[in-house]
Amino acid sequence: MTSTRTQVHRLPERGAYDRESIYRILDAGFLAHVGFSVDGQPFVIPTLYGRAGDKLYLHGSAASRMLRELSQGVPACVTVTLADGLVLARSAFHHSMNYRSVVAFGIAKKIEETEPKLEALRAISEHLIPGRWADVRGPYDQELKATSVLEFSIDEASAKVRTGPPKDEEEDYSLPIWAGVMPLNLKPSEPIPDSPPEIPLPDYAKRYQQKSF
Amino acid sequence: MTSTRTQVHRLPERGAYDRESIYRILDAGFLAHVGFSVDGQPFVIPTLYGRAGDKLYLHGSAASRMLRELSQGVPACVTVTLADGLVLARSAFHHSMNYRSVVAFGIAKKIEETEPKLEALRAISEHLIPGRWADVRGPYDQELKATSVLEFSIDEASAKVRTGPPKDEEEDYSLPIWAGVMPLNLKPSEPIPDSPPEIPLPDYAKRYQQKSF
Repeated sequence: MTSTRTQVHRLPERGAYDRESIYRILDAGFLAHVGFSVDGQPFVIPTLYGRAGDKLYLHGSAASRMLRELSQGVPACVTVTLADGLVLARSAFHHSMNYRSVVAFGIAKKIEETEPKLEALRAISEHLIPGRWADVRGPYDQELKATSVLEFSIDEASAKVRTGPPKDEEEDYSLPIWAGVMPLNLKPSEPIPDSPPEIPLPDYAKRYQQKSF
Repeated sequence: MTSTRTQVHRLPERGAYDRESIYRILDAGFLAHVGFSVDGQPFVIPTLYGRAGDKLYLHGSAASRMLRELSQGVPACVTVTLADGLVLARSAFHHSMNYRSVVAFGIAKKIEETEPKLEALRAISEHLIPGRWADVRGPYDQELKATSVLEFSIDEASAKVRTGPPKDEEEDYSLPIWAGVMPLNLKPSEPIPDSPPEIPLPDYAKRYQQKSF
Protein backbone atom coordinates (compact mmCIF):
# COMPACT_ATOMS: atom_id res chain seq x y z
CA MET A 1 0.00 0.00 0.00
CA THR A 2 2.68 2.48 -0.99
CA SER A 3 3.66 5.06 -3.58
CA THR A 4 5.46 8.38 -3.44
CA ARG A 5 2.30 9.87 -1.94
CA THR A 6 2.62 7.81 1.20
CA GLN A 7 6.37 7.54 1.44
CA VAL A 8 7.40 8.50 4.91
CA HIS A 9 10.21 10.85 3.98
CA ARG A 10 11.59 11.48 7.41
CA LEU A 11 12.58 8.93 10.02
CA PRO A 12 11.78 6.00 7.73
CA GLU A 13 12.34 3.61 10.64
CA ARG A 14 9.02 4.82 12.00
CA GLY A 15 7.14 3.99 8.81
CA ALA A 16 5.15 0.86 8.12
CA TYR A 17 3.23 -0.03 5.01
CA ASP A 18 1.98 -3.51 5.75
CA ARG A 19 -1.74 -4.00 5.94
CA GLU A 20 -1.63 -5.57 9.34
CA SER A 21 0.04 -2.56 11.03
CA ILE A 22 -2.33 -0.21 9.24
CA TYR A 23 -5.45 -2.18 10.15
CA ARG A 24 -4.33 -2.56 13.77
CA ILE A 25 -4.11 1.21 14.20
CA LEU A 26 -7.37 1.85 12.35
CA ASP A 27 -9.07 -0.71 14.59
CA ALA A 28 -7.63 0.80 17.78
CA GLY A 29 -8.84 4.29 16.90
CA PHE A 30 -12.35 5.63 16.40
CA LEU A 31 -11.84 9.26 15.43
CA ALA A 32 -10.61 10.15 11.95
CA HIS A 33 -9.62 13.49 10.52
CA VAL A 34 -10.81 13.67 6.93
CA GLY A 35 -9.14 16.00 4.46
CA PHE A 36 -10.59 17.26 1.20
CA SER A 37 -10.26 20.43 -0.84
CA VAL A 38 -12.92 22.82 -2.08
CA ASP A 39 -11.70 25.35 -4.63
CA GLY A 40 -8.14 24.87 -3.45
CA GLN A 41 -8.99 25.33 0.23
CA PRO A 42 -8.23 22.23 2.31
CA PHE A 43 -10.72 21.22 4.99
CA VAL A 44 -9.94 18.83 7.85
CA ILE A 45 -13.02 17.54 9.63
CA PRO A 46 -13.17 15.11 12.56
CA THR A 47 -15.53 12.19 12.23
CA LEU A 48 -16.20 8.70 13.58
CA TYR A 49 -15.63 5.70 11.32
CA GLY A 50 -15.82 1.96 10.97
CA ARG A 51 -13.60 -0.40 8.97
CA ALA A 52 -14.20 -3.55 6.95
CA GLY A 53 -11.20 -4.76 4.92
CA ASP A 54 -9.72 -1.83 3.06
CA LYS A 55 -12.93 0.19 3.29
CA LEU A 56 -13.65 2.84 5.87
CA TYR A 57 -17.24 3.85 6.50
CA LEU A 58 -18.14 7.43 7.31
CA HIS A 59 -21.57 8.78 8.10
CA GLY A 60 -23.42 11.88 9.08
CA SER A 61 -26.22 14.19 8.16
CA ALA A 62 -27.18 14.22 4.50
CA ALA A 63 -26.70 17.99 4.81
CA SER A 64 -23.06 17.67 5.91
CA ARG A 65 -20.73 19.57 3.61
CA MET A 66 -17.96 17.07 4.18
CA LEU A 67 -20.12 14.14 3.07
CA ARG A 68 -21.52 16.03 0.10
CA GLU A 69 -18.05 17.00 -1.08
CA LEU A 70 -16.57 13.56 -0.53
CA SER A 71 -19.43 11.81 -2.28
CA GLN A 72 -18.45 13.61 -5.47
CA GLY A 73 -15.45 11.30 -5.61
CA VAL A 74 -12.79 13.91 -4.92
CA PRO A 75 -9.34 12.83 -3.69
CA ALA A 76 -9.44 12.52 0.07
CA CYS A 77 -7.13 11.74 2.94
CA VAL A 78 -8.25 10.02 6.13
CA THR A 79 -5.88 10.21 9.08
CA VAL A 80 -6.22 8.41 12.39
CA THR A 81 -3.86 9.28 15.25
CA LEU A 82 -3.54 7.87 18.75
CA ALA A 83 -1.38 9.90 21.12
CA ASP A 84 0.50 7.58 23.48
CA GLY A 85 2.75 9.92 25.38
CA LEU A 86 5.10 12.87 25.57
CA VAL A 87 8.74 11.94 25.24
CA LEU A 88 10.89 14.17 27.43
CA ALA A 89 14.49 14.13 26.28
CA ARG A 90 17.46 15.85 27.93
CA SER A 91 17.71 18.26 25.01
CA ALA A 92 14.85 20.37 23.68
CA PHE A 93 15.68 19.07 20.21
CA HIS A 94 15.01 15.41 20.97
CA HIS A 95 11.62 15.89 22.59
CA SER A 96 9.02 13.87 20.77
CA MET A 97 5.68 12.15 21.01
CA ASN A 98 4.87 8.48 21.20
CA TYR A 99 1.98 7.82 18.88
CA ARG A 100 0.42 5.58 16.30
CA SER A 101 -1.01 7.05 13.12
CA VAL A 102 -2.31 6.05 9.73
CA VAL A 103 -2.54 8.34 6.74
CA ALA A 104 -4.79 6.84 4.08
CA PHE A 105 -5.47 8.16 0.61
CA GLY A 106 -8.45 7.24 -1.48
CA ILE A 107 -11.81 8.20 -2.81
CA ALA A 108 -15.21 7.93 -1.18
CA LYS A 109 -18.54 7.05 -2.70
CA LYS A 110 -22.04 7.29 -1.34
CA ILE A 111 -23.83 4.10 -0.42
CA GLU A 112 -27.32 4.44 -1.85
CA GLU A 113 -28.95 1.04 -1.37
CA THR A 114 -30.71 0.40 1.92
CA GLU A 115 -29.14 -2.93 2.84
CA PRO A 116 -25.47 -1.99 2.28
CA LYS A 117 -26.19 1.34 3.98
CA LEU A 118 -27.53 -0.41 7.08
CA GLU A 119 -24.59 -2.81 6.98
CA ALA A 120 -22.14 0.11 6.91
CA LEU A 121 -23.92 1.84 9.79
CA ARG A 122 -23.74 -1.40 11.72
CA ALA A 123 -20.00 -1.59 10.97
CA ILE A 124 -19.48 1.93 12.34
CA SER A 125 -21.53 1.16 15.44
CA GLU A 126 -19.76 -2.16 16.06
CA HIS A 127 -16.41 -0.44 15.55
CA LEU A 128 -17.26 2.12 18.22
CA ILE A 129 -18.93 -0.08 20.78
CA PRO A 130 -19.45 -3.73 19.88
CA GLY A 131 -22.84 -5.04 20.95
CA ARG A 132 -24.71 -1.74 20.91
CA TRP A 133 -26.28 -2.03 17.46
CA ALA A 134 -28.37 -5.10 18.34
CA ASP A 135 -29.68 -3.32 21.42
CA VAL A 136 -31.10 -0.11 19.96
CA ARG A 137 -34.10 0.99 17.96
CA GLY A 138 -33.01 0.71 14.31
CA PRO A 139 -33.31 3.55 11.81
CA TYR A 140 -36.69 4.55 10.37
CA ASP A 141 -36.81 5.08 6.62
CA GLN A 142 -36.77 8.85 7.00
CA GLU A 143 -33.83 8.65 9.41
CA LEU A 144 -31.95 6.56 6.89
CA LYS A 145 -32.77 9.13 4.22
CA ALA A 146 -31.46 11.91 6.45
CA THR A 147 -28.19 10.00 6.89
CA SER A 148 -25.40 9.89 4.34
CA VAL A 149 -23.11 6.92 4.47
CA LEU A 150 -19.88 6.84 2.52
CA GLU A 151 -17.51 4.05 1.67
CA PHE A 152 -13.93 5.28 1.53
CA SER A 153 -11.65 2.89 -0.35
CA ILE A 154 -8.09 2.94 0.87
CA ASP A 155 -5.93 3.16 -2.24
CA GLU A 156 -2.69 3.76 -0.37
CA ALA A 157 -1.85 4.07 3.27
CA SER A 158 1.09 4.28 5.59
CA ALA A 159 1.42 3.89 9.32
CA LYS A 160 3.81 5.70 11.60
CA VAL A 161 4.57 4.55 15.10
CA ARG A 162 6.92 5.88 17.74
CA THR A 163 7.34 4.00 21.00
CA GLY A 164 9.88 3.84 23.76
CA PRO A 165 12.22 6.18 25.62
CA PRO A 166 13.86 9.39 24.39
CA LYS A 167 16.90 9.13 22.16
CA ASP A 168 19.41 11.73 23.28
CA GLU A 169 22.81 12.80 22.06
CA GLU A 170 25.49 10.65 23.67
CA GLU A 171 27.01 13.57 25.60
CA ASP A 172 23.63 14.61 27.03
CA TYR A 173 22.99 11.37 28.92
CA SER A 174 25.20 12.58 31.80
CA LEU A 175 23.19 15.79 32.28
CA PRO A 176 21.26 15.93 35.58
CA ILE A 177 17.94 16.32 33.76
CA TRP A 178 14.91 14.11 34.32
CA ALA A 179 14.13 12.29 31.08
CA GLY A 180 11.54 9.72 30.22
CA VAL A 181 8.03 9.25 28.91
CA MET A 182 4.84 10.80 30.23
CA PRO A 183 2.35 8.22 28.94
CA LEU A 184 -1.06 9.35 27.77
CA ASN A 185 -4.05 7.06 27.79
CA LEU A 186 -7.51 7.63 26.47
CA LYS A 187 -9.82 5.87 28.89
CA PRO A 188 -13.54 5.52 29.42
CA SER A 189 -14.70 6.65 32.84
CA GLU A 190 -17.91 6.00 34.82
CA PRO A 191 -20.96 5.95 32.47
CA ILE A 192 -23.52 8.72 32.96
CA PRO A 193 -26.96 7.14 32.58
CA ASP A 194 -29.83 8.97 30.93
CA SER A 195 -32.23 6.02 31.31
CA PRO A 196 -33.95 5.07 34.60
CA PRO A 197 -31.91 3.17 37.23
CA GLU A 198 -33.95 -0.02 36.70
CA ILE A 199 -32.36 -0.41 33.27
CA PRO A 200 -28.96 -1.94 34.06
CA LEU A 201 -25.75 -1.04 32.25
CA PRO A 202 -25.44 -3.64 29.45
CA ASP A 203 -22.49 -6.04 29.45
CA TYR A 204 -21.06 -4.56 26.27
CA ALA A 205 -20.98 -1.16 27.98
CA LYS A 206 -19.17 -2.69 30.95
CA ARG A 207 -16.67 -4.15 28.49
CA TYR A 208 -16.30 -0.75 26.85
CA GLN A 209 -15.39 0.71 30.23
CA GLN A 210 -12.38 -1.62 30.35
CA LYS A 211 -11.26 -0.63 26.88
CA SER A 212 -7.86 0.82 26.13
CA PHE A 213 -7.14 2.56 22.86
CA MET B 1 -13.76 34.83 12.96
CA THR B 2 -16.31 33.64 10.43
CA SER B 3 -17.13 33.45 6.73
CA THR B 4 -18.85 30.91 4.51
CA ARG B 5 -15.71 28.77 4.79
CA THR B 6 -16.22 28.23 8.51
CA GLN B 7 -19.98 28.31 8.67
CA VAL B 8 -21.14 25.30 10.58
CA HIS B 9 -23.86 24.21 8.19
CA ARG B 10 -25.38 21.48 10.28
CA LEU B 11 -26.55 21.69 13.87
CA PRO B 12 -25.69 25.37 14.10
CA GLU B 13 -26.42 25.31 17.84
CA ARG B 14 -23.13 23.44 18.22
CA GLY B 15 -21.13 26.12 16.46
CA ALA B 16 -19.17 28.90 18.14
CA TYR B 17 -17.13 31.60 16.50
CA ASP B 18 -15.97 33.68 19.42
CA ARG B 19 -12.28 33.85 20.06
CA GLU B 20 -12.57 32.77 23.65
CA SER B 21 -14.27 29.44 22.82
CA ILE B 22 -11.78 28.82 20.04
CA TYR B 23 -8.73 29.63 22.17
CA ARG B 24 -10.02 27.54 25.08
CA ILE B 25 -10.19 24.44 22.88
CA LEU B 26 -6.84 25.13 21.22
CA ASP B 27 -5.29 25.53 24.67
CA ALA B 28 -6.84 22.31 25.98
CA GLY B 29 -5.54 20.27 23.03
CA PHE B 30 -1.99 19.54 21.96
CA LEU B 31 -2.38 17.49 18.80
CA ALA B 32 -3.44 19.15 15.56
CA HIS B 33 -4.32 17.62 12.22
CA VAL B 34 -2.95 19.84 9.49
CA GLY B 35 -4.46 19.77 6.02
CA PHE B 36 -2.85 20.96 2.81
CA SER B 37 -3.03 19.96 -0.83
CA VAL B 38 -0.28 18.96 -3.21
CA ASP B 39 -1.35 18.79 -6.87
CA GLY B 40 -4.96 18.43 -5.81
CA GLN B 41 -4.27 15.61 -3.35
CA PRO B 42 -5.17 16.56 0.24
CA PHE B 43 -2.82 15.49 3.01
CA VAL B 44 -3.77 15.39 6.70
CA ILE B 45 -0.79 15.12 9.02
CA PRO B 46 -0.82 14.99 12.82
CA THR B 47 1.50 17.34 14.64
CA LEU B 48 2.05 19.05 17.99
CA TYR B 49 1.53 22.80 18.27
CA GLY B 50 1.66 25.83 20.50
CA ARG B 51 -0.48 28.97 20.47
CA ALA B 52 0.14 32.65 21.09
CA GLY B 53 -2.79 34.94 20.26
CA ASP B 54 -4.13 34.01 16.84
CA LYS B 55 -0.90 32.29 15.82
CA LEU B 56 -0.25 28.59 16.01
CA TYR B 57 3.33 27.35 15.99
CA LEU B 58 4.24 24.12 14.25
CA HIS B 59 7.66 22.54 14.10
CA GLY B 60 9.51 19.54 12.86
CA SER B 61 12.39 18.37 10.77
CA ALA B 62 13.53 20.77 8.07
CA ALA B 63 13.10 17.75 5.75
CA SER B 64 9.40 17.33 6.63
CA ARG B 65 7.23 17.48 3.54
CA MET B 66 4.38 19.01 5.50
CA LEU B 67 6.52 21.90 6.73
CA ARG B 68 8.09 22.45 3.31
CA GLU B 69 4.70 22.55 1.62
CA LEU B 70 3.13 24.79 4.25
CA SER B 71 6.04 27.21 4.23
CA GLN B 72 5.22 28.01 0.61
CA GLY B 73 2.19 29.87 1.92
CA VAL B 74 -0.43 27.50 0.57
CA PRO B 75 -3.95 27.54 2.05
CA ALA B 76 -4.02 25.27 5.07
CA CYS B 77 -6.47 23.99 7.63
CA VAL B 78 -5.54 23.14 11.19
CA THR B 79 -8.03 21.08 13.16
CA VAL B 80 -7.88 20.21 16.85
CA THR B 81 -10.35 17.72 18.30
CA LEU B 82 -10.85 16.45 21.82
CA ALA B 83 -13.08 13.40 22.13
CA ASP B 84 -15.10 13.60 25.36
CA GLY B 85 -17.41 10.62 25.12
CA LEU B 86 -19.71 8.34 23.20
CA VAL B 87 -23.36 9.33 23.40
CA LEU B 88 -25.56 6.24 23.46
CA ALA B 89 -29.11 7.10 22.46
CA ARG B 90 -32.13 4.78 22.41
CA SER B 91 -32.20 4.92 18.61
CA ALA B 92 -29.25 4.16 16.34
CA PHE B 93 -29.93 7.46 14.58
CA HIS B 94 -29.35 9.69 17.61
CA HIS B 95 -26.04 8.18 18.66
CA SER B 96 -23.39 10.84 18.77
CA MET B 97 -20.09 11.91 20.24
CA ASN B 98 -19.34 14.52 22.85
CA TYR B 99 -16.37 16.50 21.69
CA ARG B 100 -14.73 19.87 21.33
CA SER B 101 -13.15 20.84 18.04
CA VAL B 102 -11.70 23.82 16.25
CA VAL B 103 -11.29 24.08 12.50
CA ALA B 104 -8.95 26.94 11.63
CA PHE B 105 -8.09 28.24 8.18
CA GLY B 106 -5.04 30.27 7.37
CA ILE B 107 -1.61 30.39 5.90
CA ALA B 108 1.71 29.46 7.44
CA LYS B 109 5.09 31.06 7.05
CA LYS B 110 8.52 29.91 8.06
CA ILE B 111 10.21 31.65 10.96
CA GLU B 112 13.78 32.27 9.81
CA GLU B 113 15.32 34.47 12.51
CA THR B 114 16.92 32.73 15.47
CA GLU B 115 15.24 34.63 18.31
CA PRO B 116 11.64 34.37 17.09
CA LYS B 117 12.33 30.75 16.19
CA LEU B 118 13.50 29.97 19.72
CA GLU B 119 10.52 31.88 21.11
CA ALA B 120 8.13 29.80 18.99
CA LEU B 121 9.81 26.55 20.07
CA ARG B 122 9.50 27.70 23.67
CA ALA B 123 5.78 28.41 23.06
CA ILE B 124 5.25 24.88 21.71
CA SER B 125 7.14 23.35 24.64
CA GLU B 126 5.28 25.45 27.23
CA HIS B 127 2.00 24.58 25.55
CA LEU B 128 2.77 20.87 25.86
CA ILE B 129 4.28 20.80 29.33
CA PRO B 130 4.77 24.11 31.10
CA GLY B 131 8.09 24.32 32.93
CA ARG B 132 9.99 21.84 30.79
CA TRP B 133 11.72 24.33 28.48
CA ALA B 134 13.72 26.00 31.28
CA ASP B 135 14.92 22.60 32.45
CA VAL B 136 16.46 21.15 29.30
CA ARG B 137 19.57 21.60 27.21
CA GLY B 138 18.66 24.24 24.62
CA PRO B 139 19.12 23.77 20.88
CA TYR B 140 22.58 23.92 19.31
CA ASP B 141 22.87 26.01 16.16
CA GLN B 142 22.89 22.95 13.93
CA GLU B 143 19.83 21.55 15.72
CA LEU B 144 18.04 24.83 15.16
CA LYS B 145 19.02 24.66 11.48
CA ALA B 146 17.67 21.13 11.24
CA THR B 147 14.35 22.31 12.69
CA SER B 148 11.69 24.14 10.72
CA VAL B 149 9.33 26.31 12.71
CA LEU B 150 6.19 27.72 11.14
CA GLU B 151 3.81 30.40 12.26
CA PHE B 152 0.25 29.65 11.15
CA SER B 153 -1.97 32.72 11.25
CA ILE B 154 -5.59 31.93 11.96
CA ASP B 155 -7.60 33.87 9.38
CA GLU B 156 -10.90 32.21 10.24
CA ALA B 157 -11.91 29.60 12.71
CA SER B 158 -14.95 27.94 14.18
CA ALA B 159 -15.45 25.79 17.20
CA LYS B 160 -17.90 22.94 17.59
CA VAL B 161 -18.83 21.49 20.93
CA ARG B 162 -21.28 18.78 21.91
CA THR B 163 -21.88 18.04 25.57
CA GLY B 164 -24.56 16.37 27.61
CA PRO B 165 -26.95 13.44 27.34
CA PRO B 166 -28.48 11.87 24.21
CA LYS B 167 -31.42 13.61 22.59
CA ASP B 168 -33.93 10.97 21.58
CA GLU B 169 -37.27 11.03 19.81
CA GLU B 170 -40.04 11.64 22.32
CA GLU B 171 -41.59 8.20 21.75
CA ASP B 172 -38.27 6.40 22.27
CA TYR B 173 -37.77 7.55 25.87
CA SER B 174 -40.08 4.79 27.10
CA LEU B 175 -38.05 2.03 25.42
CA PRO B 176 -36.28 -0.29 27.88
CA ILE B 177 -32.86 0.55 26.43
CA TRP B 178 -29.92 1.79 28.44
CA ALA B 179 -28.99 5.28 27.29
CA GLY B 180 -26.40 7.73 28.46
CA VAL B 181 -22.86 8.89 27.95
CA MET B 182 -19.70 6.79 28.06
CA PRO B 183 -17.21 9.54 28.92
CA LEU B 184 -13.72 9.41 27.45
CA ASN B 185 -10.78 11.06 29.14
CA LEU B 186 -7.25 11.44 27.93
CA LYS B 187 -5.08 11.11 31.00
CA PRO B 188 -1.40 10.96 31.81
CA SER B 189 -0.39 7.82 33.66
CA GLU B 190 2.73 6.92 35.72
CA PRO B 191 5.87 8.48 34.14
CA ILE B 192 8.46 6.03 32.79
CA PRO B 193 11.88 7.43 33.71
CA ASP B 194 14.84 7.10 31.39
CA SER B 195 17.17 9.00 33.75
CA PRO B 196 18.72 7.50 36.91
CA PRO B 197 16.53 7.21 40.04
CA GLU B 198 18.54 9.90 41.89
CA ILE B 199 17.10 12.51 39.50
CA PRO B 200 13.64 13.20 40.93
CA LEU B 201 10.53 13.79 38.83
CA PRO B 202 10.31 17.58 38.45
CA ASP B 203 7.33 19.43 39.93
CA TYR B 204 6.08 20.45 36.48
CA ALA B 205 5.98 16.77 35.50
CA LYS B 206 4.00 15.98 38.66
CA ARG B 207 1.59 18.75 37.70
CA TYR B 208 1.36 17.29 34.19
CA GLN B 209 0.32 13.98 35.71
CA GLN B 210 -2.74 15.70 37.21
CA LYS B 211 -3.67 17.27 33.89
CA SER B 212 -7.00 16.74 32.22
CA PHE B 213 -7.55 17.63 28.60
